[in-house]
Amino acid sequence: MARIINKDTTVCMSLSARPSNFGTRFHNYLYEKLDLNYLYKAFTTNNLKDAIYGIKALAIRGCAISMPYKEACIEFIDELDDSVKSIQSVNTIVNTNHHLKAYNTDYIAVAKLITENKIDNTTPFVLKGSGGMANAVIGAFYDAGFKNGIIAARNQAKGEALAKRYGYKWVKNEQDILPKQAKLIINVTPIGMLGGVESEELAFPSIMIENADIVFDVVALPVETPMIKYAQKLNKTIISGADVAVIQALEQFVLYTGVTPSEELVKKAGEFARQG
Amino acid sequence: MARIINKDTTVCMSLSARPSNFGTRFHNYLYEKLDLNYLYKAFTTNNLKDAIYGIKALAIRGCAISMPYKEACIEFIDELDDSVKSIQSVNTIVNTNHHLKAYNTDYIAVAKLITENKIDNTTPFVLKGSGGMANAVIGAFYDAGFKNGIIAARNQAKGEALAKRYGYKWVKNEQDILPKQAKLIINVTPIGMLGGVESEELAFPSIMIENADIVFDVVALPVETPMIKYAQKLNKTIISGADVAVIQALEQFVLYTGVTPSEELVKKAGEFARQG
Repeated sequence: MARIINKDTTVCMSLSARPSNFGTRFHNYLYEKLDLNYLYKAFTTNNLKDAIYGIKALAIRGCAISMPYKEACIEFIDELDDSVKSIQSVNTIVNTNHHLKAYNTDYIAVAKLITENKIDNTTPFVLKGSGGMANAVIGAFYDAGFKNGIIAARNQAKGEALAKRYGYKWVKNEQDILPKQAKLIINVTPIGMLGGVESEELAFPSIMIENADIVFDVVALPVETPMIKYAQKLNKTIISGADVAVIQALEQFVLYTGVTPSEELVKKAGEFARQG
Repeated sequence: MARIINKDTTVCMSLSARPSNFGTRFHNYLYEKLDLNYLYKAFTTNNLKDAIYGIKALAIRGCAISMPYKEACIEFIDELDDSVKSIQSVNTIVNTNHHLKAYNTDYIAVAKLITENKIDNTTPFVLKGSGGMANAVIGAFYDAGFKNGIIAARNQAKGEALAKRYGYKWVKNEQDILPKQAKLIINVTPIGMLGGVESEELAFPSIMIENADIVFDVVALPVETPMIKYAQKLNKTIISGADVAVIQALEQFVLYTGVTPSEELVKKAGEFARQG
């Protein structure tokens, strides 16, 4: 018989409007391989306040927070980690003895990828997008000292607000940027995402991909988006959405359990999770 | 690999001050054998209101309620089943589209056992105990038409209140009752319970067991309490705490899943659960 859930099993979960199987499969795979008495389950809710207070009251150890709750949940939290303070967006809650501390492991993952890829912070970048994830990504670049950034966003209100918050420039359309202005291009829109209306499209014009040194796509499904495929052909430095997804999920895993799995196991968990 | 929890897995749970493994093992055993995409986990809480509202907001399908929450939870419930109305004590919450309906499956189980054992409702009984479970048991006997009852309870305030509610007589000590007054004796105290200070003791004086026709012990661990063992030797009609525990858990199972397992499977689940 399978791992037996008992009264002492620690529960972790996620909250989002449209739950996916990624987190549930990723975490439960690692719990099983590492023989940890934990279980993980994705939830949605019709009442964010009651859901968060319920997590607190039931001593649910950790909760991943996705759209549209990343900012709205802040008022129900007891303590904010530095990764939340700068961007005011939460993707992880850790519950220690009914005390809720909020983190943003997307921010932490991007910060790690900037360091791991030794990206010079004088590199001029263009980031496309203006949602919650764009905020986490921009915040990580800003806090890493990047001064020369352009936010390309069709949504003027959100794009301008984001750019203004970090002292970057806003443009409505990346076509307005001279390709040489962007040695690092970052997609934080759904362009290229499996099942989306623009799944076959390049997130940036081909000339911008050709002129970039580093191509960063936050889309994780598929790992090889049209933009990533094109950048691979051109031998660009590539950061993929799968890198972000795995690192941020691993950060959550360590926060919840205190256990750091091997890189190999994390890779396997990521592969297993994407099959779901 | 084991049954894989996914985003669509339905969650059921329990809430009590001191969770046991019985429900968690009973329900998960049946989910596995019946190939139902459910999971069950025992919880405790430091905040009953937030826990119940959390269950509602997270669409947790069902929750078993144990001491000390059986009466306190009522104010957070949307609808009371008849099994709760008469006794004002809840042991089961069913959540259908964020609407909470409360049941008492202990009451339902005792009512079923009265019918199954064809106990004549003119039988005079003595019930020992005055806690939440005593209330459920007394309510079931009262609603089955038993008029001739005595409540023996050391706790005068609770014992008198219970007796008064149903029009029964209260005595402080069962020794004060003539043995012939009790053809049915019912223990709803922890006497005879494994690990308790009175685990080796008979719940009723031996002369009362000898004079009874039917011996009912709500203690489920062990199944064969000293009183049950003694009654077995005397060939009395016996109702055990294991009978109540299994029937009430099965009632919960059906309420949560809509599926009725076979008697044999339920028996196996009960045995498996008691090994935990």
